[in-house]
Amino acid sequence: MSKEPWKVAVVGLGKIANDQHLPSIARLPDYTFAASVSRSGGVEGVENFTELDALLAARPDIEVISLCVPPQVRYEMARAALEAGRHVMLEKPPGATLGEVEDLSSLAAERGLVLYATWHSRHAPAVGPAKAWIAERSPSAVRINWKEDVREWHPGQQWIWEPGGLGVFDPGINALSMLTAIWPMPIRLVSAELGFPENRATPIRADLALRDPAGTPMEVAFDWAHEGPPLWDLEVDASGETLKLSGGGKRMEVDGRLVLEEPEAEYDGLYREFAGLLDTGARNVDVTPLRIVADAFLTGRITHTAPFHD
Amino acid sequence: MSKEPWKVAVVGLGKIANDQHLPSIARLPDYTFAASVSRSGGVEGVENFTELDALLAARPDIEVISLCVPPQVRYEMARAALEAGRHVMLEKPPGATLGEVEDLSSLAAERGLVLYATWHSRHAPAVGPAKAWIAERSPSAVRINWKEDVREWHPGQQWIWEPGGLGVFDPGINALSMLTAIWPMPIRLVSAELGFPENRATPIRADLALRDPAGTPMEVAFDWAHEGPPLWDLEVDASGETLKLSGGGKRMEVDGRLVLEEPEAEYDGLYREFAGLLDTGARNVDVTPLRIVADAFLTGRITHTAPFHD
Repeated sequence: MSKEPWKVAVVGLGKIANDQHLPSIARLPDYTFAASVSRSGGVEGVENFTELDALLAARPDIEVISLCVPPQVRYEMARAALEAGRHVMLEKPPGATLGEVEDLSSLAAERGLVLYATWHSRHAPAVGPAKAWIAERSPSAVRINWKEDVREWHPGQQWIWEPGGLGVFDPGINALSMLTAIWPMPIRLVSAELGFPENRATPIRADLALRDPAGTPMEVAFDWAHEGPPLWDLEVDASGETLKLSGGGKRMEVDGRLVLEEPEAEYDGLYREFAGLLDTGARNVDVTPLRIVADAFLTGRITHTAPFHD
Repeated sequence: MSKEPWKVAVVGLGKIANDQHLPSIARLPDYTFAASVSRSGGVEGVENFTELDALLAARPDIEVISLCVPPQVRYEMARAALEAGRHVMLEKPPGATLGEVEDLSSLAAERGLVLYATWHSRHAPAVGPAKAWIAERSPSAVRINWKEDVREWHPGQQWIWEPGGLGVFDPGINALSMLTAIWPMPIRLVSAELGFPENRATPIRADLALRDPAGTPMEVAFDWAHEGPPLWDLEVDASGETLKLSGGGKRMEVDGRLVLEEPEAEYDGLYREFAGLLDTGARNVDVTPLRIVADAFLTGRITHTAPFHD
């Protein structure tokens, strides 16, 4: 560390903040958890504000704002924080639209502030080894199965069903962030089928076809109506072998042989990377996974499925 | 001109090629119309191919490929042309997805070739004067009404209703290309309502709310079920006056007073700009209008309207 710990405020004390952000901030010596913003109660031992603007006005000592609110309200908060001279970390996806993220990125660059658009799955333990494995081979196909029970993993979260909430792409974008991190070439969407529950504004299922410039076929299946244990699997065929990442990147097998299995520590990884950005003043804003999702909505064929009720 | 005229082939002899591209190429001294690619007949006096690959193999003398095919098939053709060392001009929108355009842009840069993503409405006669008018004032609001009868303007064109065909955004993106050209700040989508005919895969109506970083409200109404004369209007309130562009940018009024009215010569403008790029080896690939459309699909609320029949 090149200085005293960074004073960080966490905005939005929902499931992801409590499960991941607060524990990582508490574990890492780079940070001091300094305040929170939440309309439904705070965290013991630190000052809580009900509005971000109040925090920005009252606490000029807080240098870093970590935004864990839903994507639909993230832009205005990120803009306010940057305009108040604070560095900003964005939960994934970095915004509800590509335009928002581009706007924030320009603003951060103008003001010389750090903006970090996080993709937590890129910090899964098998990502680095998988990237190295692929780099040494000739990949010929990819299959992604990202299937979970939304009732278990997003209990009562209504924003995921509202426009801009992404629906099944909220977990699925994790797979896309991982794939685009391990792949040696750019990846583009070719076609998509999106299944919207009749009574909802976002899809519960999506099937995507992706390609790289070499034409490698990539089949992607996202399903939020999946019962039983979740599948967070990514398989790559290359040079006669098959790599399988499972558990969202916690486990790596080659031809069924276990190569690596480690507990996830993604958010520690994110906050360590962010500390590096803060120390050097660099920005990291990669919209590629969100661009693939936007392209899926732009060109996808919509079908309607049975109504979904929580 | 710094050299002999550029030998250009036109791919896709549909309505836009016959109405605009071929006449502009014939009028301008920068070009020689050298060949066409079409599966349904060619143009008298030049060689016609039924496949682009056949042209690329048989006619290495043709330096420039102008693609007038629907966006859903443009990427593969653009890629093939660039890989064969040809400069490429893309009709709008430059691709079916943002990922495609980014991919083509990278490829053109790698190969040192010219790629021009055209936005013909940016060459309407009132665009330059409107931009200058806004730059000297404080704009406070924008209203766009882009309404036409699809049966009259796109007779029998089925691709516009297929995924990736954009529906009413096919004409509407012209308004967005004009707005983003005259506006002094970046523009982002805030919300969208998209009306899909029950039996079609793309919207026939769209209402958008856009903003710039200063918060200027921008209301956009696209309607393809509009009967009677088309409305292609863009209004800007600024410093107590109202600018109105009508006829897709052929006419400019301020507070009802006519400032400018000229016949359109958009495609001559495009091909002149392209000649400048070809002479200098520069690229011009601005995806902003397509990004706003993608953001509208990504976050828009979909409603269903009566079935549409041609």
